[in-house]
Amino acid sequence: MCQLLGMNCNTPTDIVFSFTGFANRAGKTGIHTDGFGIAFFEGKGLRLFVDSQPALTSPVAVLIKNYPIQSENVIAHIRKATVGEVRLENCHPFCRELWGRYWVFSHNGDLKNYAPRLHSHFRPVGSTDSELAFCWIMQELAKAHAGMPSIAELSNTLRELAQVVSRYGTFNFMLSNGVALWTHCTTSLFHLTRQFPFKSARLQDEDMAVDFSQLTTRDDRVALIATEPLTTDEPWEPYSTGELKVFMKGEYLVDI
Amino acid sequence: MCQLLGMNCNTPTDIVFSFTGFANRAGKTGIHTDGFGIAFFEGKGLRLFVDSQPALTSPVAVLIKNYPIQSENVIAHIRKATVGEVRLENCHPFCRELWGRYWVFSHNGDLKNYAPRLHSHFRPVGSTDSELAFCWIMQELAKAHAGMPSIAELSNTLRELAQVVSRYGTFNFMLSNGVALWTHCTTSLFHLTRQFPFKSARLQDEDMAVDFSQLTTRDDRVALIATEPLTTDEPWEPYSTGELKVFMKGEYLVDI
Repeated sequence: MCQLLGMNCNTPTDIVFSFTGFANRAGKTGIHTDGFGIAFFEGKGLRLFVDSQPALTSPVAVLIKNYPIQSENVIAHIRKATVGEVRLENCHPFCRELWGRYWVFSHNGDLKNYAPRLHSHFRPVGSTDSELAFCWIMQELAKAHAGMPSIAELSNTLRELAQVVSRYGTFNFMLSNGVALWTHCTTSLFHLTRQFPFKSARLQDEDMAVDFSQLTTRDDRVALIATEPLTTDEPWEPYSTGELKVFMKGEYLVDI
Repeated sequence: MCQLLGMNCNTPTDIVFSFTGFANRAGKTGIHTDGFGIAFFEGKGLRLFVDSQPALTSPVAVLIKNYPIQSENVIAHIRKATVGEVRLENCHPFCRELWGRYWVFSHNGDLKNYAPRLHSHFRPVGSTDSELAFCWIMQELAKAHAGMPSIAELSNTLRELAQVVSRYGTFNFMLSNGVALWTHCTTSLFHLTRQFPFKSARLQDEDMAVDFSQLTTRDDRVALIATEPLTTDEPWEPYSTGELKVFMKGEYLVDI
């Protein structure tokens, strides 16, 4: 199994604090040592870092912990290999381009006997069930919409597609195109919104606390989503099984 | 204009020495300060680092200079913006997936009045003529071949496509799928093969020399390709205008 971390904000924000705790689960407070990856959108642009070394010790993770990259949409993943060898091409997040936008995807869970028909042009490079599901989702999105639809339309399509894939097993996933962050829960996912009035927060996996009131403006809004809560003193809300939650500009879009 | 650096080897090799000199051209010995990028294939897997900061000072470039990533195919690019703003999505190299393989592309030069018809599914994310040309090449490759063809067939198709794009201006480019490295010259490109017996080499852009005989085995073979020679004491060979050279396992494939 693996763990997921996502962030969606209304203003470019760094993820150094959250990633520092999350990365400890790759060997210190967790067993997810089979590679990691993190994707940062900057507008339409994307930085995608992957490493087959553990996030706890990888030089790439050291960079991430020390270089406060400002982003409105982040997806990170630490891997415990189940399907697919420990190789770079099997590290999440995966990326494809559709409608002139990058799409980034990470998955936690196993899909059993999952062999969708890929008749379009999205093909997996590695050997994970996760990348296979991503390619199928991209194919079906491209079939369902001629060009980039609204976030509401995309969310409807993704909700249907998530249900189809979920028949094959555990399908906790995060997907972003740099505008919105879609998150789907089968077994475990929690979310949290940080907004005015900001408070301090203490990491679950590291002896570290931050007073966000010192680092923010009244208008900032940040949504965080993770497999397990990252802090001990904030109101993380669990997802229900089968829920797809959509975040945009740091806001959980309740009725979409 | 921009500068290109490529490496193709028969055994995974790091590019720390060459990149250190190359990165100096982003502000110290050259003016290519509008972002940079570097792509490393590890088998089918890919690491793609981009930054809109100069390679001379970017924290990502510091990582590249200190983390000896072993790769058989590398493409690096330092940018001097001409078409397209200084934004992350305009940083080379660009990446797309085709036939279950990542393809990575960097370009140096300007294309004038270049507006190819994109009727397939490869679309630019940024606003450079380079990414536009890349998308067109991927579209035409996908049209010309039903699945992954041989390196010889790919080279024939790419030679024809390069000629078409070259009508619009300067089209020095590098393209790799992790197996081969295709390089095309309009105005300036040089290549070099390092093989047994290895010697020492001194950088053009930094007071640094390496004795490769201490770091290699008899079987190692490394091809380096760059816009301008990177070392002062090695036999860099210039390309002719319109030449497409293909490298595989560190070898320049003469008759392909």
